[in-house]
Amino acid sequence: MPISILHDHLRDQHKIVPEDTAKRLLQEYGLQIPRGRRVSSADEGVAAARGLGFPVAVKAISPDILHKTELQAVRIRLQDEAAVHVAIREMLALLRTQPEIRLEGFLVEEMVPTGIELIIGLQNDAQFGPVIMLGVGGIFTEIFQDVVFRVLPIGKADALAMIERLRGKEIFRGYRGGKAIPEEQIADLVCHVGHFGLEAAQYYESIDLNPIVLFPEGHRVLDAKILLRREVASKPIASAQPDTRYLGKFFTPAAVAHVGASATPGKVGNIVLDSLTQHEYRGKIFPVNPSRREILGIKSYPSLEAISEPVDLVVATVDLLQVPQVMRESATRGAHAMLIISGGGKELGGERAAVEQQIHELSRRLDMRVIGPNCIGVYDAESRFDAFFQSHARMLRPKAGPVAVLSQSGTFAASLVEDLARVGISKMVSYGNRVDVDEADLIAFLADDPATKVIGCYVEGLGDGRKFLTTAARVIREAQKPVVIWKSGRTPRGARAAMSHTGFFGGSYAVYEGAFAQAGVLAVDSYEELLAACKALAWQPIPRGNRIAMVSNGAGPMVTAIDLSGSYGLEVAVLEEATHTAMAAQLPPFYITRNPVDVTGSGTAREYQLVMEALLRDSNVDIVMPWFVFQDTPLEEDIISYLAEFHRQRRKPILCGGIGGPYTAKMSAAIEEAQVPVYHSIQGWIAAAASLAQWGRTLERPPGQKTP
Amino acid sequence: MPISILHDHLRDQHKIVPEDTAKRLLQEYGLQIPRGRRVSSADEGVAAARGLGFPVAVKAISPDILHKTELQAVRIRLQDEAAVHVAIREMLALLRTQPEIRLEGFLVEEMVPTGIELIIGLQNDAQFGPVIMLGVGGIFTEIFQDVVFRVLPIGKADALAMIERLRGKEIFRGYRGGKAIPEEQIADLVCHVGHFGLEAAQYYESIDLNPIVLFPEGHRVLDAKILLRREVASKPIASAQPDTRYLGKFFTPAAVAHVGASATPGKVGNIVLDSLTQHEYRGKIFPVNPSRREILGIKSYPSLEAISEPVDLVVATVDLLQVPQVMRESATRGAHAMLIISGGGKELGGERAAVEQQIHELSRRLDMRVIGPNCIGVYDAESRFDAFFQSHARMLRPKAGPVAVLSQSGTFAASLVEDLARVGISKMVSYGNRVDVDEADLIAFLADDPATKVIGCYVEGLGDGRKFLTTAARVIREAQKPVVIWKSGRTPRGARAAMSHTGFFGGSYAVYEGAFAQAGVLAVDSYEELLAACKALAWQPIPRGNRIAMVSNGAGPMVTAIDLSGSYGLEVAVLEEATHTAMAAQLPPFYITRNPVDVTGSGTAREYQLVMEALLRDSNVDIVMPWFVFQDTPLEEDIISYLAEFHRQRRKPILCGGIGGPYTAKMSAAIEEAQVPVYHSIQGWIAAAASLAQWGRTLERPPGQKTP
Repeated sequence: MPISILHDHLRDQHKIVPEDTAKRLLQEYGLQIPRGRRVSSADEGVAAARGLGFPVAVKAISPDILHKTELQAVRIRLQDEAAVHVAIREMLALLRTQPEIRLEGFLVEEMVPTGIELIIGLQNDAQFGPVIMLGVGGIFTEIFQDVVFRVLPIGKADALAMIERLRGKEIFRGYRGGKAIPEEQIADLVCHVGHFGLEAAQYYESIDLNPIVLFPEGHRVLDAKILLRREVASKPIASAQPDTRYLGKFFTPAAVAHVGASATPGKVGNIVLDSLTQHEYRGKIFPVNPSRREILGIKSYPSLEAISEPVDLVVATVDLLQVPQVMRESATRGAHAMLIISGGGKELGGERAAVEQQIHELSRRLDMRVIGPNCIGVYDAESRFDAFFQSHARMLRPKAGPVAVLSQSGTFAASLVEDLARVGISKMVSYGNRVDVDEADLIAFLADDPATKVIGCYVEGLGDGRKFLTTAARVIREAQKPVVIWKSGRTPRGARAAMSHTGFFGGSYAVYEGAFAQAGVLAVDSYEELLAACKALAWQPIPRGNRIAMVSNGAGPMVTAIDLSGSYGLEVAVLEEATHTAMAAQLPPFYITRNPVDVTGSGTAREYQLVMEALLRDSNVDIVMPWFVFQDTPLEEDIISYLAEFHRQRRKPILCGGIGGPYTAKMSAAIEEAQVPVYHSIQGWIAAAASLAQWGRTLERPPGQKTP
Repeated sequence: MPISILHDHLRDQHKIVPEDTAKRLLQEYGLQIPRGRRVSSADEGVAAARGLGFPVAVKAISPDILHKTELQAVRIRLQDEAAVHVAIREMLALLRTQPEIRLEGFLVEEMVPTGIELIIGLQNDAQFGPVIMLGVGGIFTEIFQDVVFRVLPIGKADALAMIERLRGKEIFRGYRGGKAIPEEQIADLVCHVGHFGLEAAQYYESIDLNPIVLFPEGHRVLDAKILLRREVASKPIASAQPDTRYLGKFFTPAAVAHVGASATPGKVGNIVLDSLTQHEYRGKIFPVNPSRREILGIKSYPSLEAISEPVDLVVATVDLLQVPQVMRESATRGAHAMLIISGGGKELGGERAAVEQQIHELSRRLDMRVIGPNCIGVYDAESRFDAFFQSHARMLRPKAGPVAVLSQSGTFAASLVEDLARVGISKMVSYGNRVDVDEADLIAFLADDPATKVIGCYVEGLGDGRKFLTTAARVIREAQKPVVIWKSGRTPRGARAAMSHTGFFGGSYAVYEGAFAQAGVLAVDSYEELLAACKALAWQPIPRGNRIAMVSNGAGPMVTAIDLSGSYGLEVAVLEEATHTAMAAQLPPFYITRNPVDVTGSGTAREYQLVMEALLRDSNVDIVMPWFVFQDTPLEEDIISYLAEFHRQRRKPILCGGIGGPYTAKMSAAIEEAQVPVYHSIQGWIAAAASLAQWGRTLERPPGQKTP
């Protein structure tokens, strides 16, 4: 059966592919289906059942029945001929009362023994195109939402990773004395479905294979529901590539025109001009304002045309409705880059949404890259280019450093920049409504930016999920720069009315989570974790594994750290015997020399040094994590230089923690001078270790490059 | 069948009560069991099966078989006489090879149709005594750990709350077209088991009723496993009451002896003496040191005996091994209170664990209350009594305020005190190894302390769980003071080898969580949430419900707040139409007047005021939550006085949020001057609202007083 059969059904405006057709199609892709026959009458049904052997199931076949059970259009465990006869006659009588349902006959199928149930789904996702979903039996999927997604295409390693990620995977491993199902076998099954999902991508909206019953020696697809698109997609898999042209102009422009420069203190146009001109940036700035000849002591121009020199970048703070005209004029000045800080676009709908579309089109037509609208600006800590609409009085401008910050939200852009002040940032882009330049373009640009070592992003959604995914995977693989993402907007759409189980999860975080895992992106779960991960990745070496060793002069935080470590994928290292011996020989007898090592409130800086040296030598330890109760007097301030010295050796990552008041803050600052991070929350401390460990794993097994 | 049958089995050293006995016993308590008969041969089995009707199940009966399935000692769905005959003969042959198993016969039972499965368990918990567990069907319990506990006795309201807490509760509500099971019916079932669990408490270690199959009109207990204790407990339910005698002496002692006062800077005995004498405390202090006549400019005594005056409190910083002698001498000085800061006790085992036991006994014998050992001290912010072993240079001593802090961990005691400096604390107790005074004693004491309005606790375990539970419930009900607890040490013991499913969860956080819910304790999940909740409860009024309304000049944090609100039990309020109208009439058209209200980067202080006024008037809103991007220039500093004025009105709780650098910190501090909290994490902000809402609910329905 050729895949073009889907085309025929779609053309005939079928919502649903008849189950027997769907199953036979899947069979072509290596899936195993129950034996069955299509019949059109009760008598034919009885004959078919006799041929198959009892018990059997009988289901109505129709391109219009979405939920067979609700319509009583399925009967199972029919034990004899009479039962089959009755079932078909009853269904015929019932369906005859619903003329809108086109009845094509009945599928008589052998009953499959019970077993472990899976759901595999396919979905045409708005952000990523075709994606595949795996879940354990119905109730797990529906109530616990224990599902895992990947973007197609996938390979066997992806399929195995999907299985590993399921909480309910225990059920495959011989649960309750049942037989184990080899995970290889499940992975093959997932790959078969993935292969089908790729080839059929232009036809389906959503597909549920649910349940698939697994046996140690095979499987059976008990039900297959293929929901078709409204029309054939000519290009179901987006293939946009990142575009980095002219992006450099946003960070080191030689000449900048600022349209909307204002002389009124407190106005956005005034603060942006202040940021551009009154601080450390050394490029030329041309304020544009029709009614002023000078603003903030700088010559102002009545229009872009009045600027005689070429312009690299135009910064706009005028009403968005004026921006298209500004773009046209900018083009005449040779500008290929435009930063639109102004908001009030698509979020308000109507003509304001339309103007965004117009800006998008002009960007293409004029060969002009656009960042924004609705953003707080761009900042380059090295060139000191600064277009923030936040004043210097209210917001820090950090020193140059290794972390690039990308943020869809201006709020988080601002606070990330401030919270990373001690680490230092390379570039910050608040890209707002993303009318042209998107995350993928920026990540591709930053891959080649020598100042950037770590890329930290806050996103609510992605412009083009697939473009992002392939770009991120390539940057991670080739440039070996970690991309850390915190995505919010996670609550599932909650479309209880979704026509398929898989569709229910469409657009949910589960889909993003899968895509991030696939690309090797380090996905974190909060603002605090984003900061924690960026700091660790910026300053510390890459660990060889996920085994942490802790030492503290206060036991309390260790209890919580152990609580959290498992869910963050970390192991609490079992120390080598020699490590205990070395420690025990030199420490007072009332110290605890197992991991976490407890040097008690009496712990001195020298003792921490001794313990850390032992942990750094221990081949069972990948990450060394000292926690400090700085408030305790025996802990001398020499600890700062000991930590700095260990850091210089760069043998293993060192992550510190400590909570408290001003003295703790002062000590933390001193330690961070040496680029040893100090975390003020246990969760941040553990999340930082998890990010390092995950990044180490990613570098060992970089994401593949799969193109359909 | 009388409950004393359990006594007989226990006396006969049975590990397990034979299944048919267990079931008949449960029947006496209102549980429904399958029809069945005990038989001793294959022929008898066939006859019994004939009487019951096919199909049947046959199970071996023995006080020694723990896992019937593993031993193939259970056969189900036997369809005819031959099958029963074969099954019993096979089992006989099999069990004959295992002489250690005492075979008492076979239970032949009717097969119960499939249905929704429950597990209900009973456990003799080390902390709480008899507890009851409820979970949905096997796999939910085992893989997703979807279980809920309560301490016995329970009432129907408790049982209903247990059901509500199950994630898998959907399954009772007509899942997949199945019939709904009335929750009242499940609650009755839980209560029946609870009743049994209470009456049988002296006999069992752990009980699994698993599965119980539910039908719309009843249920059947398919398996009942009663694991007996080694011996009958004479007092299975602890009845200790809190003891507050002399506790006041720890906070406002008129005369204090400090045994272990040291002249060596940096020594614990030196810092504690510094804390006691060199700052604001005005009581008399007698340093005791055999070799000094003066320390820190204060007259020192060679021994306790040398002090001629009566002493209220003795503070000990000497080696723990010397403490019993110090206690005896203290008694002669009339002291009834002793604070032991010294560590090195039970955590080291051996003679040091023994000395703790000795201190415990002396405390009883000498009528001397003991706090510690292994703690950082006690602090009263009002009297300025300060026995911290952290120096003033390294640790803040906060002003007097409404929050009392109790902490098992010294580390968290120290940082909580510092992190609550702006809120102010009433009393702080680090109680360490809890040899005498425990959380329950302290909570009972604080209930009557006029300075304390909120009690915040960090615990790793509880001294006597049941004493704590009843005390906390009483304090909450009678004194109406919120008790907020963060408990760490949550990882389940993971005893895969546990003999029952219920036992697997013994000591896990699930048990504590249930107890906390029962007592009306506000349980939080992190250090940060503990702080967040205490601040909100200390400063803000009690909301009438859980509906939050947010307003922000930055949209990003709103996305996360909405993501989090559901899991924290909050609702995002649907505003009244009049509220929109009022806002829309006065705000620029590009502001969003739905909840969360978005005043954009242009939002001014006056506009926030206007929005907040509208939200405070809206009867759909319980908690008003402004988020501030303080970095944005249009937001004037007038916001401080607007917030202060709203706070004076105390119409609804107001919780603010904002993240950023020094300017944000400065604004937050100014706003908090007016006792309006400002949170620097979205999660803290949401957790604070959740605590207020939960406290409001608790006051409406205060915890009951159930005594067995």
